[in-house]
Amino acid sequence: MEITQHTSHTYNQELEVVRTHVLQMGGLVEEQLSNAVKALLEKDSELGAEVARNDYKVNKLEVAIDEECARIIARRQPAAVDLRLILTIIKSITDLERIGDEAEKIGRYAAEASEQLDTNLMLALRHLCEHVKLMLRDTLDAFARVDATRAMQVSETDLEIDREFEAIYRQLITLMMEDPRNIKQSLNVVWCARALERIGDHCCNVCEYVIYLVNGKDIRHTSKEEMKAVLANTPVKKLN
Amino acid sequence: MEITQHTSHTYNQELEVVRTHVLQMGGLVEEQLSNAVKALLEKDSELGAEVARNDYKVNKLEVAIDEECARIIARRQPAAVDLRLILTIIKSITDLERIGDEAEKIGRYAAEASEQLDTNLMLALRHLCEHVKLMLRDTLDAFARVDATRAMQVSETDLEIDREFEAIYRQLITLMMEDPRNIKQSLNVVWCARALERIGDHCCNVCEYVIYLVNGKDIRHTSKEEMKAVLANTPVKKLN
Repeated sequence: MEITQHTSHTYNQELEVVRTHVLQMGGLVEEQLSNAVKALLEKDSELGAEVARNDYKVNKLEVAIDEECARIIARRQPAAVDLRLILTIIKSITDLERIGDEAEKIGRYAAEASEQLDTNLMLALRHLCEHVKLMLRDTLDAFARVDATRAMQVSETDLEIDREFEAIYRQLITLMMEDPRNIKQSLNVVWCARALERIGDHCCNVCEYVIYLVNGKDIRHTSKEEMKAVLANTPVKKLN
Repeated sequence: MEITQHTSHTYNQELEVVRTHVLQMGGLVEEQLSNAVKALLEKDSELGAEVARNDYKVNKLEVAIDEECARIIARRQPAAVDLRLILTIIKSITDLERIGDEAEKIGRYAAEASEQLDTNLMLALRHLCEHVKLMLRDTLDAFARVDATRAMQVSETDLEIDREFEAIYRQLITLMMEDPRNIKQSLNVVWCARALERIGDHCCNVCEYVIYLVNGKDIRHTSKEEMKAVLANTPVKKLN
């Protein structure tokens, strides 16, 4: 997809720089999630606390990128695909920041957790963690490549994540019912699983913005079938 | 605050129209929250289902307003306060839409709930509901009046909402521990209380955007003290 071919060399550079910053922010969010998950699964409370401490870095990047976008709109008066790129970035970084917030929450729980978890539950949780990490990586990849087809595929995996969350939730209810002493700890796991499930939702949002960027059509809140119809009618575009 | 004084009459009108649409969206979200809360507290499952069915209306408004904003940027090349207004709107409607999502969730739980709740819990929940409804109304009011001082005051009430949520959460844990048969029902109440608490967070976000709109300074992720310092150094501005 042709994004950065303008007669003004500086304008091209500005758009490239802001895209790079979004990818840097994405990389940081990925690292935060990865560490939060590691802290949770390995009961590494020091690492969990570190994740919570580092959330401000994600926040700072969000504010800085928003300012860059405002400057580009004011100076360059972007139109068509450039404007869509800027709007996509403004929306996407809100979701990235909130993924950072969810990672922070997981970090905080991990920092407080101490008891050993039930083995089956641990297995299910580990699976959900890996799945969500992969979804975030694929989302950032779809953004980096401006690849709407990939974005569509990624957003479809959210259903599986929802199902995995539901399964963990049922397991936790059973554990709590078996022994009320499990309640507090189980609830903390519920919050972590919920945070992971919400990260899936935020990835979906970013994927929908990527599809909007490529197709110029806002497919939020439409059914998967409608989204596919939009994609089917769009000629395949390549980045650069 | 002077927002809509341009030589172009149509441009003024366009900005006014998009602001009106945001307030309409806000009104709809308020109605959704109000009905969801009523359904929850009065065990009105039909009303709960209606809230869930009506969420698409909020979503449609979000997409329409985003399109309006994109059109205004492309055609009018807004600068300074107009640009901040458009950016504020683009960010705020994402939060309004997510408040709609949380209301939808509460509606769904209300549609499924059947058992009678513990009286004390019911009282605490009713209080939280009223508090969050008020916070949303005040947030929309601060947006409508472009009143940063009001927005600052509103965002401060979020701390109380967090405290109320924590109190309800502790009550629920106790109930679950006393009798494991309470677990499933209590968890549903936890989700509703959490949804309310998150609505408070989204209101905070909108308030921060209003402060940005008035002061031109992004105060997200800064401490309340820093925010107040920004406001103290800003001359009081009036709308129109």
